[in-house]
Amino acid sequence: MKIITPKLIVDKERCIANIHKMASKAKTNQMLLRPHFKTHQSIEIGRWFKMFGINAITVSSVKMAAYFANDGWNDITIAFPFNTLEINELNKLPENIKINIIADNATTIQKVIDDITREVGVYIEISTGYKRSGISYDEIDTIKCIVKKINESPKLELKGFLTHAGNTYQAKSTAEIIKIHRHSVNKMNELFDLFAEEYPTISISIGDTPGCSCSDYYKNIAEIRPGNFIFYDVMQYYLGACNLNEIAIKVACPIVSKQASRNELVIYGGAIHFSKDYINIKNGDQLFGLSIPKEGGHNIENYGKLCRLSQEHGVLKVSTEEFNSYNIGDIIYVLPIHSCLTINAMREIITTQNDRITTMK
Amino acid sequence: MKIITPKLIVDKERCIANIHKMASKAKTNQMLLRPHFKTHQSIEIGRWFKMFGINAITVSSVKMAAYFANDGWNDITIAFPFNTLEINELNKLPENIKINIIADNATTIQKVIDDITREVGVYIEISTGYKRSGISYDEIDTIKCIVKKINESPKLELKGFLTHAGNTYQAKSTAEIIKIHRHSVNKMNELFDLFAEEYPTISISIGDTPGCSCSDYYKNIAEIRPGNFIFYDVMQYYLGACNLNEIAIKVACPIVSKQASRNELVIYGGAIHFSKDYINIKNGDQLFGLSIPKEGGHNIENYGKLCRLSQEHGVLKVSTEEFNSYNIGDIIYVLPIHSCLTINAMREIITTQNDRITTMK
Repeated sequence: MKIITPKLIVDKERCIANIHKMASKAKTNQMLLRPHFKTHQSIEIGRWFKMFGINAITVSSVKMAAYFANDGWNDITIAFPFNTLEINELNKLPENIKINIIADNATTIQKVIDDITREVGVYIEISTGYKRSGISYDEIDTIKCIVKKINESPKLELKGFLTHAGNTYQAKSTAEIIKIHRHSVNKMNELFDLFAEEYPTISISIGDTPGCSCSDYYKNIAEIRPGNFIFYDVMQYYLGACNLNEIAIKVACPIVSKQASRNELVIYGGAIHFSKDYINIKNGDQLFGLSIPKEGGHNIENYGKLCRLSQEHGVLKVSTEEFNSYNIGDIIYVLPIHSCLTINAMREIITTQNDRITTMK
Repeated sequence: MKIITPKLIVDKERCIANIHKMASKAKTNQMLLRPHFKTHQSIEIGRWFKMFGINAITVSSVKMAAYFANDGWNDITIAFPFNTLEINELNKLPENIKINIIADNATTIQKVIDDITREVGVYIEISTGYKRSGISYDEIDTIKCIVKKINESPKLELKGFLTHAGNTYQAKSTAEIIKIHRHSVNKMNELFDLFAEEYPTISISIGDTPGCSCSDYYKNIAEIRPGNFIFYDVMQYYLGACNLNEIAIKVACPIVSKQASRNELVIYGGAIHFSKDYINIKNGDQLFGLSIPKEGGHNIENYGKLCRLSQEHGVLKVSTEEFNSYNIGDIIYVLPIHSCLTINAMREIITTQNDRITTMK
């Protein structure tokens, strides 16, 4: 296929290697790997997980649950605070599949109890420090009250406690990721211990890609739910969660302008392709992606820096040598800062073998 | 329509008022208003401009030109550095419509000359300080060389000089926007004066929403190309380009979690809805949007702050009173930080009158 506009390219071999690595880690630690499919939102890519015996998945919306259920996935956790306005959509999901929802408050649980017509598993969402949604791990009375409420309903099954230690994304080093992860696992265990005797079937679900990539500490963890690891990205690289050669996704971008006085290549590839996510690098500069050097290799110094983004424009700062090696109309390959948002923005994917991959629309 | 998931709502009356204001300003200054349609990417919304006699538009891609040409627009400028890889797509646009492209280098012009099969207008893109694409206004020799090249081709018509002073978006005050705008207009005039005698049909095209909203200085400007002004947004409000009651777009978001210890409402509405664009407000805090207070009014202090965003989650910091007035499952209305990217992310629009609006897919 001739590339003429920005195109998202997935390296299937690297994806398979990334899945294999995480699946092996889960197996070693006797955990279920329940990968988060919001990263790729693709039935075809979802199937790549099946060769590793994966049969339980995580999604981020009821619509996404329906999309993957339609391809035969029958054990799905919707890992977003349940939106009670979608109770009818939840009820409409195929009856013969296992669905888990998550909630962090009694109002949500009560509304689900009032209107649910199917059986559903419920995880109580806990915050071990991320402070987005979730009940703080030390609010034991609130948690007890919700546990009791769930347990009183014949349609609801208490599955246990779930957390997303997304604060690993703010870590300044791999050591800090490992520390945050360990803290999170320990707090989940303390909570678990308070309830395990009375509710012997409950378990702990955790999962963020930095923590699951960097740490080997999984005391009493039943399942992990990382998603990003299938592709990784520049953010994960800077966090220390992956190597450059594990990043399995890149965007092919046409060069439309060359700014010789600044060694900047202006590319067709902007916020509507990469999203506007970024990380701060040295001197507080923002980084939106990295262009792969023509000569290849894994020396980060040789990578071009996607330093500014507007709606369709991207500005790549490159070395003089790299600058001179490109002409207007050439394609340059850029590793995105955040693969999940890039996939969501672009939707259309091809593989390095030129196969088209469909995603949820 | 019952809202159960994030929904983008456009206030047609406010849009019409915003178009009216900008069209009047253009008329007063004897300029053509050639609005940028990448902001809304919608045939229906495009038609709202027709009642003000608008018949020339700006788009950001060849695909978008084809989309609007299909609805009868016949004078279209593709205001993105022409991507030479799309020359065939350019050639395929209906022959009977006027198309202008922009370019900032001789290579692009040569490739167009080599492969173009239709007549096309060409603006030379100039940078008056934004430093994205465009030739710096003071590189006269380079500009002369390109002017000459364009003029030698029978298929290409030199239209003049075009700039986007996007550096107004970095301004810290309205006064600074006005200063940047004036500088840009003056530099374009200096350049124009060097060529006007030899090329009497050329003209100047400028246009960014902050500059066009805040300034009344349009010396010798033939046309303006703002786009965002139809909706405005929170970024434009903080720049001083609009009032809160001129923002014509909002996102309805379900509340899925309440965090009482932090007065934070967690909403279904994240980076995949708002984009991850932001501005820095006091203390360097990031702002991704503002929630409209229940009591209404235009006191900015009463607006909730969308202070964190992940893929589907948004976190709104609100007053205690506002916090207590909302329940799980309620809808809260959020003004986006950047309307163009929000439209691009969400695609589906309804009006305040509940009409569905289609956009380019």
